[in-house]
Amino acid sequence: MNGTDKAGLGVGLVGTGYMGKCHALAWNAVASTFGDVERPRLVALAEASVDLALSKAREFGFASATGDWRELLANPDVDVISITTPNRFHAEMAIEALKAGKHVWCEKPMAPRLEEAQAMHAAWRASGKVAALGYNYIQNPAMRLIRKLISEGAIGAVNHVRLEMDEDFMADAQAPFAMRNEASAGYGALDDFAVHPLSLLRFVLGGVAEVFGEMSRPYAERPDGKGGRRAIENYDIATALLRLDNGASGVLTVNRAAWGRKGRIQLQLFGEGGSIVFDQERFNEVQLFKREGAEETQGFRTILSAPVHKPYDRFIPAPGHGLGFNDLKVIECRELIGRIRGEQASIFDFDDGIAIEKTVHAIADSFGKGGWVKVA
Amino acid sequence: MNGTDKAGLGVGLVGTGYMGKCHALAWNAVASTFGDVERPRLVALAEASVDLALSKAREFGFASATGDWRELLANPDVDVISITTPNRFHAEMAIEALKAGKHVWCEKPMAPRLEEAQAMHAAWRASGKVAALGYNYIQNPAMRLIRKLISEGAIGAVNHVRLEMDEDFMADAQAPFAMRNEASAGYGALDDFAVHPLSLLRFVLGGVAEVFGEMSRPYAERPDGKGGRRAIENYDIATALLRLDNGASGVLTVNRAAWGRKGRIQLQLFGEGGSIVFDQERFNEVQLFKREGAEETQGFRTILSAPVHKPYDRFIPAPGHGLGFNDLKVIECRELIGRIRGEQASIFDFDDGIAIEKTVHAIADSFGKGGWVKVA
Amino acid sequence: MNGTDKAGLGVGLVGTGYMGKCHALAWNAVASTFGDVERPRLVALAEASVDLALSKAREFGFASATGDWRELLANPDVDVISITTPNRFHAEMAIEALKAGKHVWCEKPMAPRLEEAQAMHAAWRASGKVAALGYNYIQNPAMRLIRKLISEGAIGAVNHVRLEMDEDFMADAQAPFAMRNEASAGYGALDDFAVHPLSLLRFVLGGVAEVFGEMSRPYAERPDGKGGRRAIENYDIATALLRLDNGASGVLTVNRAAWGRKGRIQLQLFGEGGSIVFDQERFNEVQLFKREGAEETQGFRTILSAPVHKPYDRFIPAPGHGLGFNDLKVIECRELIGRIRGEQASIFDFDDGIAIEKTVHAIADSFGKGGWVKVA
Amino acid sequence: MNGTDKAGLGVGLVGTGYMGKCHALAWNAVASTFGDVERPRLVALAEASVDLALSKAREFGFASATGDWRELLANPDVDVISITTPNRFHAEMAIEALKAGKHVWCEKPMAPRLEEAQAMHAAWRASGKVAALGYNYIQNPAMRLIRKLISEGAIGAVNHVRLEMDEDFMADAQAPFAMRNEASAGYGALDDFAVHPLSLLRFVLGGVAEVFGEMSRPYAERPDGKGGRRAIENYDIATALLRLDNGASGVLTVNRAAWGRKGRIQLQLFGEGGSIVFDQERFNEVQLFKREGAEETQGFRTILSAPVHKPYDRFIPAPGHGLGFNDLKVIECRELIGRIRGEQASIFDFDDGIAIEKTVHAIADSFGKGGWVKVA
Repeated sequence: MNGTDKAGLGVGLVGTGYMGKCHALAWNAVASTFGDVERPRLVALAEASVDLALSKAREFGFASATGDWRELLANPDVDVISITTPNRFHAEMAIEALKAGKHVWCEKPMAPRLEEAQAMHAAWRASGKVAALGYNYIQNPAMRLIRKLISEGAIGAVNHVRLEMDEDFMADAQAPFAMRNEASAGYGALDDFAVHPLSLLRFVLGGVAEVFGEMSRPYAERPDGKGGRRAIENYDIATALLRLDNGASGVLTVNRAAWGRKGRIQLQLFGEGGSIVFDQERFNEVQLFKREGAEETQGFRTILSAPVHKPYDRFIPAPGHGLGFNDLKVIECRELIGRIRGEQASIFDFDDGIAIEKTVHAIADSFGKGGWVKVA
Repeated sequence: MNGTDKAGLGVGLVGTGYMGKCHALAWNAVASTFGDVERPRLVALAEASVDLALSKAREFGFASATGDWRELLANPDVDVISITTPNRFHAEMAIEALKAGKHVWCEKPMAPRLEEAQAMHAAWRASGKVAALGYNYIQNPAMRLIRKLISEGAIGAVNHVRLEMDEDFMADAQAPFAMRNEASAGYGALDDFAVHPLSLLRFVLGGVAEVFGEMSRPYAERPDGKGGRRAIENYDIATALLRLDNGASGVLTVNRAAWGRKGRIQLQLFGEGGSIVFDQERFNEVQLFKREGAEETQGFRTILSAPVHKPYDRFIPAPGHGLGFNDLKVIECRELIGRIRGEQASIFDFDDGIAIEKTVHAIADSFGKGGWVKVA
Repeated sequence: MNGTDKAGLGVGLVGTGYMGKCHALAWNAVASTFGDVERPRLVALAEASVDLALSKAREFGFASATGDWRELLANPDVDVISITTPNRFHAEMAIEALKAGKHVWCEKPMAPRLEEAQAMHAAWRASGKVAALGYNYIQNPAMRLIRKLISEGAIGAVNHVRLEMDEDFMADAQAPFAMRNEASAGYGALDDFAVHPLSLLRFVLGGVAEVFGEMSRPYAERPDGKGGRRAIENYDIATALLRLDNGASGVLTVNRAAWGRKGRIQLQLFGEGGSIVFDQERFNEVQLFKREGAEETQGFRTILSAPVHKPYDRFIPAPGHGLGFNDLKVIECRELIGRIRGEQASIFDFDDGIAIEKTVHAIADSFGKGGWVKVA
Repeated sequence: MNGTDKAGLGVGLVGTGYMGKCHALAWNAVASTFGDVERPRLVALAEASVDLALSKAREFGFASATGDWRELLANPDVDVISITTPNRFHAEMAIEALKAGKHVWCEKPMAPRLEEAQAMHAAWRASGKVAALGYNYIQNPAMRLIRKLISEGAIGAVNHVRLEMDEDFMADAQAPFAMRNEASAGYGALDDFAVHPLSLLRFVLGGVAEVFGEMSRPYAERPDGKGGRRAIENYDIATALLRLDNGASGVLTVNRAAWGRKGRIQLQLFGEGGSIVFDQERFNEVQLFKREGAEETQGFRTILSAPVHKPYDRFIPAPGHGLGFNDLKVIECRELIGRIRGEQASIFDFDDGIAIEKTVHAIADSFGKGGWVKVA
């Protein structure tokens, strides 16, 4: 008997770098993990070179490979396209895919420039298709717990937030000047990181109304690889004061030169009845303080992710065993399928993406002006 | 062009409970993750009922399904069989599979009784095939780091170890008497848990020469579901003093009624030049103390798993982002394929399994006798 | 034989609230703890009421008591006066004491208004006496370790700092409107807290050149105790962006309505070669990340305070046993005596106090103006 | 007016090493701290040499000094004697002091040999005086909280305990052979450490009925300081299985060669309704898991010591600010005074001391015999 006769979604994948692999793993795992969706059909994979495409198609289990991503648009077996190429290609690919009647699963951020993101948004609105963004950190069951706790009032109205994101891949002062140090590569840490904590904030609480931005350089220059030194053109550190839509105050800091921080995204959420703290480096844990019960036994509790925190149970039936980073993409994939199916699904679309990216650009704008800027 | 033309291993899967799903996820992911093995061919899946087999085959991507596991033995397309059924079936299935010329990937422990495990071992020796056990915790890159540190002498000769494993699924005193509380279900926590920390100990340091065992019951009886109460026949807590092959002393405690512990396996390893502490509830971290450098800056350091800790890099290119429990099975799957290929591979075979299970039985034996027992 | 014949410093104490008691404990303990100073003579204690003064003198071991603090100024046996009254009395008392030729040990902050602090500063300069401030957190051996590490370049040039101070004594939204919610009580959290993290920053690294301030209210109003509600006039939360004298960037946030935070003062210091993290709630620990050695074993290490971190050894000869909050005041007392003796001593004087308080006022000023303000 | 006219207890102190200093600090601080006892009169201090006695009397504030401890017995102004000399002197001094009609505050353990401890006990019973032991760890407000929680049933009946105590002062394998490595110095880690966790266990839960002991040597020999090596005669590591009076099982491990552990005393207490974990290296914190409320928010909470945990409030009015090791001795001193006054006081007397030391000797006895030994 044939176990795979029923047809799932037809998938096209563009890009096979890290996020491409992450999408491929998710498409391969989603049916086994969840058991309530048909196995996707891995139809076609596109890469810049045919040889790479072929080899990756074999690794990832795609039925065909191509060196031209536009072939996926023309392929009637493809229902949805994963776009995992460098950010500067997102706009063109997403717009074309949507025009071709495909659903789109695009890695974040939408695009380097707000105008491009807005064009993507317009194409999506015109298409009637699903356009989802790869904000996988929001798919963490721990993050869903935080959202649930806040929406249920477990810590009351949130009045102050602190967001930090730090890694150390730019911390080596002797690393030579690279493309990402050029002004043309964007603001620096602000682009690289800020969308992540802002997406978590949006997911659990909401958006940002007004910002005041500051950026700084831990190192003014780097070796130019030719025996000289070259001035760094963007900023490895950015900070912003926030005024949230709900009236809360906040502060956001991101640093890509923070020695010892590897994947830290810390949220501190202070409410009228308690506090919540989360750190992505221990993303199977939530810290919760509730002002309840006898004062003598109050304290921050460490909640370990468990089957009760859906959909952790689809991965592991026992609590405290730990999801991995790639598992979050599998959840995202399931949510995407749900959105395509018309289910209530928890995934960020281009509306969310625009809101987040506007906040980032407003921070940069404020830094230029030296005053508060509204997120229009 | 067809991306999946080259043939990988032919896989048969018996059992589709949690560990069956975990094996299926691993077989689906191993090629995409590692990129250096052909995608396995998911040939056939066996379950007790054909209907369940069919539905799981569709979920897991197996090409065919059967209600009779022996069909897999006769299928020439099957090279290796994943055995994920309840422990009491392991012996018969593994022995038959090995006799049929299949490689075997069997979940731990080998079997409830040592005689069965020994029969499995004999069948394996006679077969010339690979027989691997699902000790996935040893596949953790953090655990490999610990082994490497110890073998390189980073903390000198280890002279004392402490091992703990705790969960709380038997902690509810009001949960009704169940099969696992019967004497026929085994010793209790000793069978359920002890193989895990002992496998980690074996992996990083070595075996156990002599033991003194103790077992206890947190609750003497449980509701019998008929309005009465029934005496619990085995032990939810077990402790053993250990004398290791290398001369070190140790202590092992396991508790399946430990409220708040969800997946804790703590190792404390004390050596002549430092100490290492590990806790499975934060299994992407290793705590290392080295007696080196100025005393004023000595301290336990928290090492986050990172690409430098192979094969973490095959899952995520950035440090500190976190592997999940299921990822460890993918690594194990890759090691199994390596072992079958004749590569140097890091996986526990039936030699290891026998050594571990003998230790468990010696602890029980010692408890009965009230004196030290050699692990023969 | 008489063990107390040699004369130590003659001490006068004004105020017997918590900080008065803390000074008294320090004066009682300093000689026994350090063994290198004569026991201070506890000459006279002043309180608002004579009865309270008498009873506290008996408790604290002072030889005499008075209801008029000015009596201490006239007492030739008094060499140094501890000023521990509410902040609004500091200026008058300190100025008079200095004029009377007494050394002064005054609790921080110097005074609510900068003009008063400046008058104190002028009086000090004119007096030729020692004027020390009770910034006891800087006396922590862990903080001295951090300063030493930074000054030795252990983490290279510091390029970014984050400072947080949080408690929850104003977190209860139903607590009635109180004096501290009035505008006349000051800015709110900014006055209450900011001097603490700023003092630590100054101690380990240096001062602040420019600030941008923001303040917010978690609750707009409180019960007025008469069945109505009254608008809160100052701010329980304050945040500031910082540009440091050394060129580093920074952010400071303080919150006195942060549920679950009890005595948190967190410092994060990022440098060219490593990072340091400190949290006052675990003030016997320093977190240090150094980029050195093999990458596979790099990580934040937790350094426990120990005899090697002077003067911890004067309290406890064994490492990891833990100093207490009151012990820091004993160290401060020893430093004060050292300063009076003309030794090299580590204590903040009125120069330091003015610099810190100017920064606080600049933050408030910036908040009013909505732009960056230089700390003049 | 004279603030110190009313007479407190007359105190004699024997010994001025670390614990002598600790007692002296406590006697100096107890009245200021608590405010409800008269300031003790520091009458006389005894040391082996008169010169040392004189100098320490000056430091510690004692009115007189002597080279002969028996002078204190004859001094009618002395009501209570602090005995802080090496353990081998405790028995003689305590017995003589009690015979002389003095109350005794003796450092733990009572004596190296059980017979001596029993003689002390007999002398105490005959005296009608107070005889208290310096088990200062039980005075920790956090420990009182644990006792309260257990006695109130917050975690239900405790069915399993784990006790560990580790330091690293014997961890250096190259440290030369010293007196403490001789058999005449006692069992080794068992004497040095076991009384501490056993005292905590006794304080929060109760005593031990039966033990099985094991001891081991991390290093077989040490440099003898003359170019050769000498075999170590006692044991730096000891472990014991415990059967408690209340029917619970337990395990105790102590290690004075545990690199990186500085003052660790970890308790894990598992009960029918929850768990409690405590670590002396963070002794201002208690970890509590209660099985209550929604499963999705259950977790171990970290309770910071606070004024609500009496008598923390006598030291600091704000929560989370941290007591120090020496503060525990001040609490003990207050309890001692209370016991002398006839108040309900929480301090271990010689009944408690005998019970603890019998357990230690039973462990050693069991190790010799290789079987379980009842604590008679």
